[in-house]
Amino acid sequence: MAESNPGTPPAAPRLVDVDGLARALAAFARERDWEQFHSPKNLVMALTGEVGELSELFQWMTEADSRVASSDPQRAQALRDELADVLLYLVRLADVLGVDLDAAAAHKLATNAAKYPAAKARGSSRKYTEI
Amino acid sequence: MAESNPGTPPAAPRLVDVDGLARALAAFARERDWEQFHSPKNLVMALTGEVGELSELFQWMTEADSRVASSDPQRAQALRDELADVLLYLVRLADVLGVDLDAAAAHKLATNAAKYPAAKARGSSRKYTEI
Amino acid sequence: MAESNPGTPPAAPRLVDVDGLARALAAFARERDWEQFHSPKNLVMALTGEVGELSELFQWMTEADSRVASSDPQRAQALRDELADVLLYLVRLADVLGVDLDAAAAHKLATNAAKYPAAKARGSSRKYTEI
Amino acid sequence: MAESNPGTPPAAPRLVDVDGLARALAAFARERDWEQFHSPKNLVMALTGEVGELSELFQWMTEADSRVASSDPQRAQALRDELADVLLYLVRLADVLGVDLDAAAAHKLATNAAKYPAAKARGSSRKYTEI
Repeated sequence: MAESNPGTPPAAPRLVDVDGLARALAAFARERDWEQFHSPKNLVMALTGEVGELSELFQWMTEADSRVASSDPQRAQALRDELADVLLYLVRLADVLGVDLDAAAAHKLATNAAKYPAAKARGSSRKYTEI
Repeated sequence: MAESNPGTPPAAPRLVDVDGLARALAAFARERDWEQFHSPKNLVMALTGEVGELSELFQWMTEADSRVASSDPQRAQALRDELADVLLYLVRLADVLGVDLDAAAAHKLATNAAKYPAAKARGSSRKYTEI
Repeated sequence: MAESNPGTPPAAPRLVDVDGLARALAAFARERDWEQFHSPKNLVMALTGEVGELSELFQWMTEADSRVASSDPQRAQALRDELADVLLYLVRLADVLGVDLDAAAAHKLATNAAKYPAAKARGSSRKYTEI
Repeated sequence: MAESNPGTPPAAPRLVDVDGLARALAAFARERDWEQFHSPKNLVMALTGEVGELSELFQWMTEADSRVASSDPQRAQALRDELADVLLYLVRLADVLGVDLDAAAAHKLATNAAKYPAAKARGSSRKYTEI
């Protein structure tokens, strides 16, 4: 393609592709007449609820234990379920807001790289406004 | 492909593909020696912070206003940035936990379809335990 | 008092008294015509935002560091401010919902004592459904 | 008192008094040997979990419905329980951090009054940086 059309830059590789999930969730909502509930405001609250459940899984763990949290099969399943719940609401929210998550992620990565130059940020957890 | 190799099932279409972003975030952390901070416990807290910022964008909006939140360019940029921040921490968290988000989402979609049969759940926001 | 009026039980000591703050916040909202924004739904989102800010203060801290977080004067002020923000929205939310936080706390303490008998729960962070 | 001791200013009325609850929670933790789990970092995560549960109660409600959420007895009990859970973790967190919630609330109220003069903020939900 590029050869025959030298003016077109090659497409940048996608960082994320959530189109399949967005379509599946839109169909799921449509089939249940749930679009009426899926306002961005409501979806942000649903996302909050799921992040709260994720937080509950980790609240009493030490950091060291959290690094091996997937080693217990039962807990690993709980983790997968909660991460999936967060992802589902995030993708649905982006879809109803018309946000392209791939483009948004690329933009944010570039912003973060400028805010946190490796040489200055190395080994520090300080905020960019303090480095 | 499938014809010439009948023993291999056709690959299921992916619901999400976050590999590019996961690799970019891992490199970003490695270059800054930030892996020490990226325990799952800490990343869940960072995710919480970003969902809090998203919540602040919507807290005083009516539901109706939230449905057209992207129509204001300045607010649309803020929304894209916050959604990207949530996505970045979610993908990084899944990566350090070794969770395959595509498989987790597929599993969760199937679970939700069983919990909320379209015929029973239509037009209702009740929890599956109450329908 | 009790002697002269034997039919009146002595008042139980209050666990919390938030009446002064609830009144101050109601006046604050009334003077600014903000009651229209203070629906319980909106206030829960505002509370979420404040808990997110609190989370950001602790996200990269070790647990050990978090135990001495108040020792740095600048951070101590940030902590006080964020805890106050959470309290303000919580008290305002309870007020608009007509919830008596003192009674609710007493009820919850009694429930927790039944769920987590000291002998069984000692030294364990497991949920009551697992002890 | 004030008459006989004119040099002592009258005590300012307290906005909140959470001492009884803080003592009860400290005893509860001590009796169960839970002080080891109650680092500020962990308590912030527990608080996040409770705010997530509160959010789930309101996520599909309209604002109008949220204003009368207490009218259903079963839901009213759920609301009281969740508000109490948030309060319990907040008071425990302030206690382990050594934060005086009454003083912190008074300071914050004064700050907010300066940020949002009634004349300028009336009827507007904009942030103080934008009014």
